[in-house]
Amino acid sequence: MSVAIVGVGQTPFRRNCGTSINELCFDAFRNALEDIDLAPKEIDASLICSAPEYDKQRSPAGLISEYLGLTPKPTFYVESICSSSSTGVKVGYSFIKSRLHDIVAVIGFQKMSEISSGEVQERMGRGADIQWESPFGTMMPAGYAMFARAHMQKYGTTEEQLAKVKVKSSKYSLSNPMAMYRRALTLEECLNARVIASPLKMFDCCANADGASCVILANEGKAKKITDTPVWVAGIGATSDTLSTTARTNLTGLTCAVEAGRQAYKMARIKPGDVNVAEVHDCFSIAEIMACENLGFCKPGEGGKLIEESQTYIGGKIPVNVDGGLLSKGHPIGATGGSQIRTVVLQLQGNAGKTQVDGAEIGLVHNIGGIGLYGNVTVLRR
Amino acid sequence: MSVAIVGVGQTPFRRNCGTSINELCFDAFRNALEDIDLAPKEIDASLICSAPEYDKQRSPAGLISEYLGLTPKPTFYVESICSSSSTGVKVGYSFIKSRLHDIVAVIGFQKMSEISSGEVQERMGRGADIQWESPFGTMMPAGYAMFARAHMQKYGTTEEQLAKVKVKSSKYSLSNPMAMYRRALTLEECLNARVIASPLKMFDCCANADGASCVILANEGKAKKITDTPVWVAGIGATSDTLSTTARTNLTGLTCAVEAGRQAYKMARIKPGDVNVAEVHDCFSIAEIMACENLGFCKPGEGGKLIEESQTYIGGKIPVNVDGGLLSKGHPIGATGGSQIRTVVLQLQGNAGKTQVDGAEIGLVHNIGGIGLYGNVTVLRR
Repeated sequence: MSVAIVGVGQTPFRRNCGTSINELCFDAFRNALEDIDLAPKEIDASLICSAPEYDKQRSPAGLISEYLGLTPKPTFYVESICSSSSTGVKVGYSFIKSRLHDIVAVIGFQKMSEISSGEVQERMGRGADIQWESPFGTMMPAGYAMFARAHMQKYGTTEEQLAKVKVKSSKYSLSNPMAMYRRALTLEECLNARVIASPLKMFDCCANADGASCVILANEGKAKKITDTPVWVAGIGATSDTLSTTARTNLTGLTCAVEAGRQAYKMARIKPGDVNVAEVHDCFSIAEIMACENLGFCKPGEGGKLIEESQTYIGGKIPVNVDGGLLSKGHPIGATGGSQIRTVVLQLQGNAGKTQVDGAEIGLVHNIGGIGLYGNVTVLRR
Repeated sequence: MSVAIVGVGQTPFRRNCGTSINELCFDAFRNALEDIDLAPKEIDASLICSAPEYDKQRSPAGLISEYLGLTPKPTFYVESICSSSSTGVKVGYSFIKSRLHDIVAVIGFQKMSEISSGEVQERMGRGADIQWESPFGTMMPAGYAMFARAHMQKYGTTEEQLAKVKVKSSKYSLSNPMAMYRRALTLEECLNARVIASPLKMFDCCANADGASCVILANEGKAKKITDTPVWVAGIGATSDTLSTTARTNLTGLTCAVEAGRQAYKMARIKPGDVNVAEVHDCFSIAEIMACENLGFCKPGEGGKLIEESQTYIGGKIPVNVDGGLLSKGHPIGATGGSQIRTVVLQLQGNAGKTQVDGAEIGLVHNIGGIGLYGNVTVLRR
């Protein structure tokens, strides 16, 4: 029995959204239900995905499930920091595949702009070991700056190549009304932006945001009744790495992504070259370059050249983040995985508008939690 | 393909345990591995279960997974307040049943005694709606005091009957070295204790604690190699109720428990009368009385009579919480479900020592999150 994604939705990603987490989730949920033949009461279970530190409300699964009209169906909270909603999709897949449930809603959200950006960084930093690492400054930008330095040193990757990732991102953001930043940037603007954690400059970094996403999964029989364009979950890979970056042997890539990709390709019985469109976790520009290498879209060390040669644009070898990615959309961490999945589902349904990759049959989502801590790769098929 | 529990472990539940969450989880994990033939590297995935508000560490799954030597296997966090580890067992079951993984470790923990008891109550209260309910005092004791009042009014349940639940609990705690409180209490002591939220007095309420639990699940083929005494997961029921207690129509029982029980009985193809031993979520004395009714061990309104007649003692109609329950063991919320499952597994394996229920074949675990918000019932079979 196969498992399909039958509906996807999201809110715009914004700063200061001015609404409650309930409403954010409701908007994403309603968006997912818009064009499909499914009533909320047919949903058997919901998984609510976010990182818990940003809200005063505890255990938001109960609150959101009730607000969405999903009571008395089971609901609970799933968390793996920035990959929480990919984790939710994995759990939802297993609920259906194990025949515990037929239809599952995975709702990711985050509302990050009520507290200061510095406070967000501090809370996010506590995803690293609070005893031995985060007090010494290994917050997200520092971690990825370290990867960027190591990559530049080992492979000769340049600041221009990093900047070109953002130039691509900003170009595609123009076609994505859900994106927070929608302005085409020049290479010069990116290179001249202020330094955040050298060599990463402002436009090399994604921004915190408020937003929600929704992915609705169903078993084979029900999927075909709910929609004419189900998208099939063909492969799921999930791994972890050491939380301690000091225990890592590889600083020029994410081991958790390499292994998650290997698992997902194996389960889907495909090779990297079979992927027609990919969403990768570009929390920083270097992250997209490493992801392309880790997923086998190019050889290790050649991620810089891949963007340099525009091979990750539409029309290139492998279009990557053609919705603008985290760098332009913004990164409401619990919602991000679901938003990535939404983009790939729309592509495989032929509903991606101006950024449609012609004839896309197989898509991939790469979603990372923490500083390379949780690796999640999902392969979807038309 | 059936799914078995092959190993169970827990730490003693204590106040001021004086150790880290890593060590707590390690101790429970080691305890679960003690008498079985399984190396940590054979475990395919781990689920870390707790309520997140009590720790400064964010996303503890990565920290704990690394500390337990489970990297690079996938790990993430699952939360449903006080039923988090039952939820983890449900997810683990579905991972195995869906053939995503063969062996899964579910580790629940909570360390609550580093902050003041008042602060714990405040954080726990925020599991209720922080906009419309918790600011008005609907914290845990108040919620269950309301249920107790309604039960007394509708059914004539007495304060003596409530106290007798604790008398039983305290008697059995003497045989459980893991329990936090191990002193046999008299009916008079219980009735004369100070009032917490009328009609609930001190001994009607469980206490916060530090502790961890571990449940290891495996598929049928591997289970039989790992242990000679696998215990089979026969039924799983999970539901939710409205978070708002104001939206509830029933205040003399938990609708979420009734429905979760019905699901679990149906899946296990048994009736309430087939259960030989049960662990129910006695966060308050009234909760055990309501659970016995909600699970069909007696008719609605007859829970008070059931304890009055000692039918929930060993030798009675249905032995309930013969490990002391939450009332005597303490309630480190993320660890509690796993500890309940451990007790029932030991019973079904014939390893329950002085509190062994002779010939127990079928056991049940009832674990509730929030004020009747998340209902979880698990049926286990020898």
